[in-house]
Amino acid sequence: MSTSTPAIAASAPGVALEPTTIERRDLRPDDVLIDIAYAGICHSDIHQAKEDWGSAIFPMVPGHEIAGVVAAVGSAVARYEVGDRVGVGCMVDSCGECERCRAGTEQFCAKGAVMTYNGVGYDGENTYGGYSRRVVVKESFVCRIPDGIGLDVAAPLLCAGITTYSPLRQWGTGPGRKVAVVGLGGLGHMGVQLAAAMGAEVTVLSQSLKKQEDGLRLGAKDYYATGDPSTFKQLRNRFDLILNTVSAELPIDAYLGMLRVGGAMVNVGAPANALSYNAFSLLGGNKVLAGSMIGGIPETQEMLDFCAQHEIGAEIEIISADQVNTAYERVENSDVRYRFVIDTATIGA
Amino acid sequence: MSTSTPAIAASAPGVALEPTTIERRDLRPDDVLIDIAYAGICHSDIHQAKEDWGSAIFPMVPGHEIAGVVAAVGSAVARYEVGDRVGVGCMVDSCGECERCRAGTEQFCAKGAVMTYNGVGYDGENTYGGYSRRVVVKESFVCRIPDGIGLDVAAPLLCAGITTYSPLRQWGTGPGRKVAVVGLGGLGHMGVQLAAAMGAEVTVLSQSLKKQEDGLRLGAKDYYATGDPSTFKQLRNRFDLILNTVSAELPIDAYLGMLRVGGAMVNVGAPANALSYNAFSLLGGNKVLAGSMIGGIPETQEMLDFCAQHEIGAEIEIISADQVNTAYERVENSDVRYRFVIDTATIGA
Repeated sequence: MSTSTPAIAASAPGVALEPTTIERRDLRPDDVLIDIAYAGICHSDIHQAKEDWGSAIFPMVPGHEIAGVVAAVGSAVARYEVGDRVGVGCMVDSCGECERCRAGTEQFCAKGAVMTYNGVGYDGENTYGGYSRRVVVKESFVCRIPDGIGLDVAAPLLCAGITTYSPLRQWGTGPGRKVAVVGLGGLGHMGVQLAAAMGAEVTVLSQSLKKQEDGLRLGAKDYYATGDPSTFKQLRNRFDLILNTVSAELPIDAYLGMLRVGGAMVNVGAPANALSYNAFSLLGGNKVLAGSMIGGIPETQEMLDFCAQHEIGAEIEIISADQVNTAYERVENSDVRYRFVIDTATIGA
Repeated sequence: MSTSTPAIAASAPGVALEPTTIERRDLRPDDVLIDIAYAGICHSDIHQAKEDWGSAIFPMVPGHEIAGVVAAVGSAVARYEVGDRVGVGCMVDSCGECERCRAGTEQFCAKGAVMTYNGVGYDGENTYGGYSRRVVVKESFVCRIPDGIGLDVAAPLLCAGITTYSPLRQWGTGPGRKVAVVGLGGLGHMGVQLAAAMGAEVTVLSQSLKKQEDGLRLGAKDYYATGDPSTFKQLRNRFDLILNTVSAELPIDAYLGMLRVGGAMVNVGAPANALSYNAFSLLGGNKVLAGSMIGGIPETQEMLDFCAQHEIGAEIEIISADQVNTAYERVENSDVRYRFVIDTATIGA
């Protein structure tokens, strides 16, 4: 039992995405049927569609930045009703019983969280993502998008927003704290807005000064080019937290040198190759190197509420279904400010 | 104005230490004169005497694990009186005014803390360490050794004790927490005792099982050989904290794999060469790699009080002045359980 819905899919690794039709399961008691309005394009969609990260499942319907409106609910759904504005991020299920799920960190579920696409549900069915008109998701993995925030600018929050919000919160961003955001892309432009809204003094560290105006407008107080070696000297011992959103192989020791005593550098981007560091760079100042992967469902809801309260959304360029392949190329060329969002009404239209 | 005191010194890098006489300054108002009873031999004494860590000052009187009795006090000294049992660790002065000093982390003083030996005081005079009969130290860098603890077993606490106590405290060691201590040497054997006394479940990770009996006696619940590759599989996702006390170049990713979600690996030992890690090892589980360098004066006092309360001391082998060079060789061959302590009454006797 299922219903067809138009979607855009890659039929094999690296090929162009094309219109298709997929099946969505009939509602289980705890399911929510969502009419998708917008789906963000995350760089990880491209990596997975190209099978950059190891064996992937095809056909693939990418998309884990989903915003839409509830179209129907299962018999046991208590939190949502038809017409509610909702979002879905990187995960659509987890065991719900392990220590990590109970702690609200479903992304680390001991049984393995079910990814929104390129995943396999506990029912054995492949999952298909948000480049589609409709999706069926278990209620507990659906978040509420507050009224104050447009569905279009909300979509990217479900991945880019939570990926930056979670480490900023975990590592104590707030008034009196100096936070650097490395890279002003899809993740970085959210990190800057969020850290500034949390009250921190924000600095952007970008390869060049090309996007300086944007960075300052988004809430940064300072903007430095890491392509200029004097930046590292000038900013020595400056930051409480460095949020690294880029996947390039950075000179870790040089970045650690910009941390104050007790400061932390948290990576949300990950290069494929190993990074190297000198142990003294951590010892000399009780410093920290950490990683952070998306965020759990309770924290995702908290982030959405925070964004609405502070009137924060992604800066987006809305595209139609037939522009997705061009958008992929532009993302790979860093030619986007700062997130493409697919108007899903154009899929199969 | 100064007074002579017998000492043991290296006259040049790498030569044998020999008896000599050094000058100690006359007491300033805030100075304490200490009759040294015992001085521990730290591996870093050997590194510095060999000039392994860059340009050093000779002649060098090593020793930053000092325990003794107050012999005289300056006119403004309020906290100590003649006869008090006291200790001195790695530092003898700092600016006292910077943010780090005010926070009790004098080791990171913005002006540069004055090291107990191989350093230069703010008065321009070279500092000489604990392999000596007497030392003059500013009151605020003198700690009280509680009555419950012997001066001989207390001496090594001033470096090996605080170096392990500080990261254990910083990273939340306590009941319900699983802590691994890597290496069972001078630092590691303190780490095991301290973590166990804090209530954690302690595991020793050592190259081999040679010291297993000691490890369990010191408070560990488990003991694994890292020379056996199955250890890393068996202990996957096990620890909240890994305290790495060795200076060897460890396979960082393999160690990070033994951490639970949100766990931290803290290094107090530092190999000379760069270490490498894969960013995914940190991302997949929000993990942490950190460094920790000794500890500040308030925390050193807290550690001494904690050790007295829990009847913890170093496991030592007391030696006389003429055995120091042999002891150095034995430390380099890891042939000590677990700390050599010089009976300083034998210096110049």
